Amino acid sequence: MQEDEPVGGLFGPLFARGSAAAEIDDNAWIVAMVQAEAALARTHARLGTIPAAEAEVIDRACVAEHLDPAELARHSTTGGNPVIPLVHRLREILTEWGHGSAASLVHLGATSQDIVDTAMMLVARRACAAIRSELAELTHQLATLAAAHRTTPMVGRTLLQQALPTTFGAVVASWLHGLDSSGHRLEQVASQRLAVQLGGAVGTLSAFDAPGPQMLTVYAAELGLTAPDLPWHTERSRIAELAAALGGIAGSVGTVARDVTLLAQTELGELSEHGDGTTGGSSTMPHKHNPIAAVTALACAQQTPGIVSTLFNTMVQEHQRAAGAWHAEWMPVRELLSRTGSAVTWLRTCVERLRVNESNMRANLDRLGGVLLAERVSADLAGDLGRERAHELVRTACTTVTERPDTDLVAELHTRVEGIRSRDHLARLLDPTDYLGSAGAFTDRALATHRAAGSAGSNEHIPRATDSAAEADTERS
Amino acid sequence: MQEDEPVGGLFGPLFARGSAAAEIDDNAWIVAMVQAEAALARTHARLGTIPAAEAEVIDRACVAEHLDPAELARHSTTGGNPVIPLVHRLREILTEWGHGSAASLVHLGATSQDIVDTAMMLVARRACAAIRSELAELTHQLATLAAAHRTTPMVGRTLLQQALPTTFGAVVASWLHGLDSSGHRLEQVASQRLAVQLGGAVGTLSAFDAPGPQMLTVYAAELGLTAPDLPWHTERSRIAELAAALGGIAGSVGTVARDVTLLAQTELGELSEHGDGTTGGSSTMPHKHNPIAAVTALACAQQTPGIVSTLFNTMVQEHQRAAGAWHAEWMPVRELLSRTGSAVTWLRTCVERLRVNESNMRANLDRLGGVLLAERVSADLAGDLGRERAHELVRTACTTVTERPDTDLVAELHTRVEGIRSRDHLARLLDPTDYLGSAGAFTDRALATHRAAGSAGSNEHIPRATDSAAEADTERS
Amino acid sequence: MQEDEPVGGLFGPLFARGSAAAEIDDNAWIVAMVQAEAALARTHARLGTIPAAEAEVIDRACVAEHLDPAELARHSTTGGNPVIPLVHRLREILTEWGHGSAASLVHLGATSQDIVDTAMMLVARRACAAIRSELAELTHQLATLAAAHRTTPMVGRTLLQQALPTTFGAVVASWLHGLDSSGHRLEQVASQRLAVQLGGAVGTLSAFDAPGPQMLTVYAAELGLTAPDLPWHTERSRIAELAAALGGIAGSVGTVARDVTLLAQTELGELSEHGDGTTGGSSTMPHKHNPIAAVTALACAQQTPGIVSTLFNTMVQEHQRAAGAWHAEWMPVRELLSRTGSAVTWLRTCVERLRVNESNMRANLDRLGGVLLAERVSADLAGDLGRERAHELVRTACTTVTERPDTDLVAELHTRVEGIRSRDHLARLLDPTDYLGSAGAFTDRALATHRAAGSAGSNEHIPRATDSAAEADTERS
Amino acid sequence: MQEDEPVGGLFGPLFARGSAAAEIDDNAWIVAMVQAEAALARTHARLGTIPAAEAEVIDRACVAEHLDPAELARHSTTGGNPVIPLVHRLREILTEWGHGSAASLVHLGATSQDIVDTAMMLVARRACAAIRSELAELTHQLATLAAAHRTTPMVGRTLLQQALPTTFGAVVASWLHGLDSSGHRLEQVASQRLAVQLGGAVGTLSAFDAPGPQMLTVYAAELGLTAPDLPWHTERSRIAELAAALGGIAGSVGTVARDVTLLAQTELGELSEHGDGTTGGSSTMPHKHNPIAAVTALACAQQTPGIVSTLFNTMVQEHQRAAGAWHAEWMPVRELLSRTGSAVTWLRTCVERLRVNESNMRANLDRLGGVLLAERVSADLAGDLGRERAHELVRTACTTVTERPDTDLVAELHTRVEGIRSRDHLARLLDPTDYLGSAGAFTDRALATHRAAGSAGSNEHIPRATDSAAEADTERS
Repeated sequence: MQEDEPVGGLFGPLFARGSAAAEIDDNAWIVAMVQAEAALARTHARLGTIPAAEAEVIDRACVAEHLDPAELARHSTTGGNPVIPLVHRLREILTEWGHGSAASLVHLGATSQDIVDTAMMLVARRACAAIRSELAELTHQLATLAAAHRTTPMVGRTLLQQALPTTFGAVVASWLHGLDSSGHRLEQVASQRLAVQLGGAVGTLSAFDAPGPQMLTVYAAELGLTAPDLPWHTERSRIAELAAALGGIAGSVGTVARDVTLLAQTELGELSEHGDGTTGGSSTMPHKHNPIAAVTALACAQQTPGIVSTLFNTMVQEHQRAAGAWHAEWMPVRELLSRTGSAVTWLRTCVERLRVNESNMRANLDRLGGVLLAERVSADLAGDLGRERAHELVRTACTTVTERPDTDLVAELHTRVEGIRSRDHLARLLDPTDYLGSAGAFTDRALATHRAAGSAGSNEHIPRATDSAAEADTERS
Repeated sequence: MQEDEPVGGLFGPLFARGSAAAEIDDNAWIVAMVQAEAALARTHARLGTIPAAEAEVIDRACVAEHLDPAELARHSTTGGNPVIPLVHRLREILTEWGHGSAASLVHLGATSQDIVDTAMMLVARRACAAIRSELAELTHQLATLAAAHRTTPMVGRTLLQQALPTTFGAVVASWLHGLDSSGHRLEQVASQRLAVQLGGAVGTLSAFDAPGPQMLTVYAAELGLTAPDLPWHTERSRIAELAAALGGIAGSVGTVARDVTLLAQTELGELSEHGDGTTGGSSTMPHKHNPIAAVTALACAQQTPGIVSTLFNTMVQEHQRAAGAWHAEWMPVRELLSRTGSAVTWLRTCVERLRVNESNMRANLDRLGGVLLAERVSADLAGDLGRERAHELVRTACTTVTERPDTDLVAELHTRVEGIRSRDHLARLLDPTDYLGSAGAFTDRALATHRAAGSAGSNEHIPRATDSAAEADTERS
Repeated sequence: MQEDEPVGGLFGPLFARGSAAAEIDDNAWIVAMVQAEAALARTHARLGTIPAAEAEVIDRACVAEHLDPAELARHSTTGGNPVIPLVHRLREILTEWGHGSAASLVHLGATSQDIVDTAMMLVARRACAAIRSELAELTHQLATLAAAHRTTPMVGRTLLQQALPTTFGAVVASWLHGLDSSGHRLEQVASQRLAVQLGGAVGTLSAFDAPGPQMLTVYAAELGLTAPDLPWHTERSRIAELAAALGGIAGSVGTVARDVTLLAQTELGELSEHGDGTTGGSSTMPHKHNPIAAVTALACAQQTPGIVSTLFNTMVQEHQRAAGAWHAEWMPVRELLSRTGSAVTWLRTCVERLRVNESNMRANLDRLGGVLLAERVSADLAGDLGRERAHELVRTACTTVTERPDTDLVAELHTRVEGIRSRDHLARLLDPTDYLGSAGAFTDRALATHRAAGSAGSNEHIPRATDSAAEADTERS
Repeated sequence: MQEDEPVGGLFGPLFARGSAAAEIDDNAWIVAMVQAEAALARTHARLGTIPAAEAEVIDRACVAEHLDPAELARHSTTGGNPVIPLVHRLREILTEWGHGSAASLVHLGATSQDIVDTAMMLVARRACAAIRSELAELTHQLATLAAAHRTTPMVGRTLLQQALPTTFGAVVASWLHGLDSSGHRLEQVASQRLAVQLGGAVGTLSAFDAPGPQMLTVYAAELGLTAPDLPWHTERSRIAELAAALGGIAGSVGTVARDVTLLAQTELGELSEHGDGTTGGSSTMPHKHNPIAAVTALACAQQTPGIVSTLFNTMVQEHQRAAGAWHAEWMPVRELLSRTGSAVTWLRTCVERLRVNESNMRANLDRLGGVLLAERVSADLAGDLGRERAHELVRTACTTVTERPDTDLVAELHTRVEGIRSRDHLARLLDPTDYLGSAGAFTDRALATHRAAGSAGSNEHIPRATDSAAEADTERS
């Protein structure tokens, strides 16, 4: 592979974008497998079951560069996984180096699944770290955006219909909160559920001279992974939890990306992506400004639920090693990490490119000439007229305005309630910026939660939108 | 519906078995919806936004028996959900009762989604509690079983081939640990992520006179659900997490059920289900003893990953209320709760009926006449003969024994290593009960984790397998 | 169940709407199971393996009303399916009637799976017929709509951005063609792949006195289903094909429904649903006109891909009867038939309610002041100016117009190409109705294909849009 | 990439094995894209919309070797697909060659999706041809195997329990029939549904000077793909049908592979895989003979249902080009082709390696000492004793034999029916080879169907099992 070839090949820059992809490619797996073998030798040495000197030389041999990926791949068909040729090659190397006794101690007591599973966990940990890092950047951007637009009014839409006013800040706060929630779950899984695997052929560690629990503890410490209570050769809840956490991230990305594509519609024009140069443009259609980053983020996200279901299906594994369901995990795990990472990275790019068109937001909000706020006027009049009569009165005024664009809702209402309500009062009732409810308070809460969740470093830069944010914070349980 | 009609109809006793099913049927949803409306009125009253007396009378009207399910169903088509006819009917009742002013305060400020989502969370909480309760019984049974068979030897199998000895206790310990892990995750989700929904039309609570954050806090307290930071009308990570937690339970059940069906094969005969009377029998095939409970548990579990993927797909929801993806959640959530609950209940039945045939376990273990333990003999000889020669010597001895069933492996080996190893030594090396590694220690750990996780009550009854269990316990981080 | 209770209960009118739902409820399954038993007896009689008189009395006993669904359900747990109690009850009835010898001939030679599978195929055939009938109505409506709007211009949108002009006829033609394609596939599956099941315990029909192939042929003829080459107890490709065909229908419905919700957006206003009375309206938001039918159709459709995947997963079935995967099919098959049928019915309702707002279509088309057609002007000028220069010239003219709404594109272009192109020529180039390409021809082809596919009856009513449709028809291979 | 690097990298030989994989890698996509561009130019020329000489030079430029995959990949991010840089590069090449006018005619009138979709169809056609070719080999092997074992008795198993006798021929016939059915469906899809795409920006072909239907016909003829009635930019039923057809193949493979792993269990020993040398062996466990090919085939198959669901989900595509769902198809289509092809190839390898252990089949059949055939004895006695009494008598005899292994069922029965049935008669009733029903006839039918479906060449080699096969053939409708 050439130095500058994109990870993931032809479609890599679209569906394997960002820093996670490099953590899960073939080389990353080979690195992880040799690290798993090296750590096994060191574990034996620490527990006194092989000499320290032998472990040291094994450790030195365990370098990915010593291995030919094509050869590992080709010989993986003999046993159904790449560990057998990998161990074979490591032993060859040690024998070539004149360390025959060390050669016979490579992979001591372990089964292929111990190495593949441990390597998969190492790969997952690194890819999750990359995803979380990109997610931290993304949510930081969103927090800044939410704070900046805390009071920018826009129309809220339900079932794709205009409903009532909200703020762009509150919209972004909901996006942010979803990503923070999903990110929190990924963090839990990454820190608690990514465990080493070590059990030997049937999970009893019978070929080890040290007690199994101790082996697990030391092995985990060597690799910085969680020490499981017992081998988990066919107990795959941690894989399913990892899959769900990644799928959750992708889903949270998808909902933001979908909203961006909707708000970027030509007829709405509330958001647009502005990349450098020709990005998203069309050579033949100069009016087009495709939100390519949002589109690609969504495309990545939409590929994940099917993969998640595969990894829930493969939870059912037979006896002490599954005949198929185990092998069926490797590619889906890779693809899920890759697509999820790419989804996050593309959304980050989308947000970087995002331009908010406040005047279009306002124009769309005013498009129905106050009719949006009918419920508020009805409520205001209900005390004097009764709910039914108030509602009917407002409804007919709205119908008039909707059917005759030259009419004005304040006037229409005023002729109907002249004695009871002033024009000014009605105008205020119909002012969308005066009917934003707790949009600001909720924005502040999402920001406060984000700050509380984040690490010290990056979050200091997120502006506090208002003082009330702090109050909201203290109110919370 | 007749009193004695099974929940779930014709296929209910198979796929909607156990206590969870009753918590998610139509009546349970209606109960939850009226409770959501009642709690809304009480929340208003507590915050002073409606008079306490009005809230009280609304609360009294909010009784499922007042509502005709068929009528709610029929009128749900107007607005796309059953809340509009439900509110209409509650107002009618209050008006009939002469409480016209209370009638106008029903559903005040809320949107249909607030009620449906809150009701779905109530339903989920109750169904999850039922599932967790059945799961507690199931894992208690498994803990007892693991302890009882801590030293029962059986053959461990990989890729469905005999591999090395293990114990039935260790096998059950792995089942137990999987169910405990998945149960732990469900507990997290049930206690932290099942939140009330309250946002009004677009999530700003603009029609409320009290601050939104305060409304959420009080509303949640009224219903015993989590108070969310902000409305989550289109931020569905909690639904996805619920789905994944349930799918995890089902997967953990499925792997046990698959193992039971495999171990109950006529040719293995290590386990069997013994229900009362004719259960699992065949009138025409008297030799058959179908493990019906395991089979049905697996059938329930296998229906879940597809549903999980649906609920990850529907995470992508538009703007402030989705045009379809929201509505698409209700049936899958029900079906997932139902199938998962049924899977747990069937597995519990399976374990209750389980008979362990230790002599068949032993016979299967001895079937290959010691060949299983070849790796151990090789390892033992390697020091004297070198790894390669030892391996070759053992291999040919094994081949001889495999091809000529009348030969004995101890004898075959002894002729080859007469000077170096005694018959007794070789016989001990080939004794499967002497090569169980950490099977016991891992069994103890799974039991210790189970005890630690369980509530005070039930777990006292789980026998400590050995003293070393306690030690294992203290060893753990 | 009360007479007037909606099929599917509380959520039935939303997710189990239309005529298919009644064909798959509990009663329909019981009807199908007794029909399978009755046809088995008649098959025996026709092949002379039981007396005709016995078959006749069995046939008379095989009436759903004789059976208590609750009892079947309750006793299904003994054997894992409802056939054992059903056969038991039929024998009881015949014994009560004094036909003890007939009683012993019920279910003769069959296994439970023969009856359940055959019943599932009968249920599927009826539900598919109902779905296809509703689909015929729906596509008829769409064909009429496409013909009516063959020349109605609207803007085509790519990545949710305005791109180039098309016609509403062409848009509907694409919807129609998708539904016709998916309907064609369902028809294939329904007519060819829904087969009787008959194999006895292990698929050898060993308890039958007539040759197996003959039994299958006669049994199929009795029930009007396909005669399979051999029993298919664990060869489930027909279930997967049924699932895929239904999923295809749902997907085709979903894409139409999604488009309707998008075109009905407040800011686009090109389509709207107008039901009777308050349908889709909001009591508090009089401006809202929710496209409830499209939304619910989409919600039904979105629940199907997960179910499809379940039925592909359960294709893997063990030996001569699966331990779980078989049982796991029943509910997903029902749910898939139900949701797909409901999706079709809701879309039919949507199309019935649809109002096309041609003036909004035109207004949206004109919104960018001709900029949409930039590619056409560029192409026109390329011959004289070269591709690069022409493109640059048009691009700057467009930018000017986009940035200064008071400017006119014809004028802007004319100042730049005064010598080479006339104002009139430029105006014609920018006329969207003059740049519709083959929109009409494609509309005609979709209509021609639809007419060719349809049955004689309904399709005669579909108007030929133009004569050229006939020509298009003859052009096709 | 080195010459000898396996397709698919590290895990390629496991999950991207066989001839299909090479048809779907990056290079294959680039080849297909340039072929789509070349054919477009030739189509223009044939319809007279560009000069033939220009088309010829474009055709010459359209060679994959002229393009740098890494560059296409890197620049694909600008527009969200690799066509924009590909067209750019082709134009550069033509300009470098001094064919500036041809350069401006590359991609004339087309949109990126036209090229990507057409290329995807070309890739699918080639990969499907490769899969079908491997499938033909596989089914040929299975047909030979079924014929060879037409009368080999073995025990049929239901719910993993021994049930009644069948033959290994009938078991293989069912496998064969499933693969033939799924293969037939793939053939239909491959020959009818893989169509060119050509529509221009919004599916109207407005930038073409020839009529759209004609363009489609000629373009399809140039590429040997199906001519669609209309552009299908957002009508994706053909993608879903392709996905389902592939998923069906994988499912049919999976059920065979699962059966092989079950029959290869140590305790059953009826089948085993015998590869060359060390394949499937274990260096430390010489008794192990892992059926690695079956395991890997199953592992490939288990990854497909999730992918199928993704491609049903992405059927819902917006307007004239989807914002994400279109892009979301590419990787799943590749992965599905790759895994399905690999599943077929691995199963072919499995069958090549398969050894049938008839004596173990017989031993397992005899294991229950005749109890398997209890239903037959009951039926035989029912005429004389009545069904109930006969059944009870047989049941108690069986119980005795089951509980006391030294007893003999013929003797036990004979003491109970001494006056009515002879020992010989009873012995014949209990002979499993005399109770095979239509196993042979069904085997013959599956072979006949296979021969009828196959192409002339390969199928001539499949032996006719018996004359009766021909008869069975003619019996069929």
